Amino acid sequence: MPSLCPLRLNSQSEEGTMKANDTEWPEMRLHPVGMVRNDISKPMMVANDDDLELRERIEKVRENRDKVRNTVSELLLEPEMAELLEGVEDFSHILVIYWPHLVPPERRKLKKVHPMGRKDLPIRGIFSACSPARPNPILITAVRLLERNGTVLRVQGLDAVDGSPILDIKPYVRSYMGVENPVVADWMEKINKELEDDPAAEDVSS
Amino acid sequence: MPSLCPLRLNSQSEEGTMKANDTEWPEMRLHPVGMVRNDISKPMMVANDDDLELRERIEKVRENRDKVRNTVSELLLEPEMAELLEGVEDFSHILVIYWPHLVPPERRKLKKVHPMGRKDLPIRGIFSACSPARPNPILITAVRLLERNGTVLRVQGLDAVDGSPILDIKPYVRSYMGVENPVVADWMEKINKELEDDPAAEDVSS
Repeated sequence: MPSLCPLRLNSQSEEGTMKANDTEWPEMRLHPVGMVRNDISKPMMVANDDDLELRERIEKVRENRDKVRNTVSELLLEPEMAELLEGVEDFSHILVIYWPHLVPPERRKLKKVHPMGRKDLPIRGIFSACSPARPNPILITAVRLLERNGTVLRVQGLDAVDGSPILDIKPYVRSYMGVENPVVADWMEKINKELEDDPAAEDVSS
Repeated sequence: MPSLCPLRLNSQSEEGTMKANDTEWPEMRLHPVGMVRNDISKPMMVANDDDLELRERIEKVRENRDKVRNTVSELLLEPEMAELLEGVEDFSHILVIYWPHLVPPERRKLKKVHPMGRKDLPIRGIFSACSPARPNPILITAVRLLERNGTVLRVQGLDAVDGSPILDIKPYVRSYMGVENPVVADWMEKINKELEDDPAAEDVSS
């Protein structure tokens, strides 16, 4: 069950509070702490692959998924982040929080999408989908941490393109990130089933 | 295994790319899409509870965790977010991404912490800990979605204080957020064990 990460509330201080209410929000500006380096130079499938048959699309998505699963990325953290990384290698998995820098700012106004651009799937709100075009485009992926070498982390399974700014690194803690039996929407179940129906699936998921 | 959310790369467009490299980062400014409403008015335990015995501290953390697990929060989304929420109720769990507005900006420069302020635990880098004081203070919790009522979501298990700005809502998708057997640092295992040694633990975790 998701629950408090026991370390989190601890260091929230009462002093210097910045009150947030409907009229007075805090300034929330981000700055990169590092950058992703990998061989994914651009999204492999874009929404205007309209000429593709459904079958071909599924094949492309599957290929893409497998490539991402196998891709090893380097997270090049800024030199001044060295101390912040101390001890991260004691975790097998981390959350990488990054910014999808290839999404043009005007696309943040998008409200609904056909998941994967598929007209056979129902149109859904952005908050029900994983589209990188969101009001605040903050993307999060749980990845395996293979190695830390100073301020460079080698990770496997990151679905970010080369050059993406990194915003944060967190340890993966099951007690507040794991969910026993999450129920997902039918359309997402359908996609997952289609991707599973692959004779080679067992090889890639192991 | 963490993997690509199949919907994500799809809508990353190639047009209008914003190149990010070491010298030229995109402008990354966030704006709230809503606000948390609950009865957690302030962090229950702060770092300067130095006068407490270890045993008392653990008891406080446990109480706090149980309160968070049971707390029902309302996510008050802005009226213009109505369309973005369509279909979110088809998911049993969502990720809530929020900003810890009570953490003063100067604390974002913190590099290391004793987890939970406990001197008996080794000092660790911020990226190895769940402290809300981080260079980019973006917090993420997986919560159970109880109900959507227009632009109000009722969720259980959110560890945010009342008034926290909400940045994003995502469906909880096991294929890229679930991890089979994550290994965590010894100090975190120790904390988890301490919290488990509670005769009432079975009641709250069910």
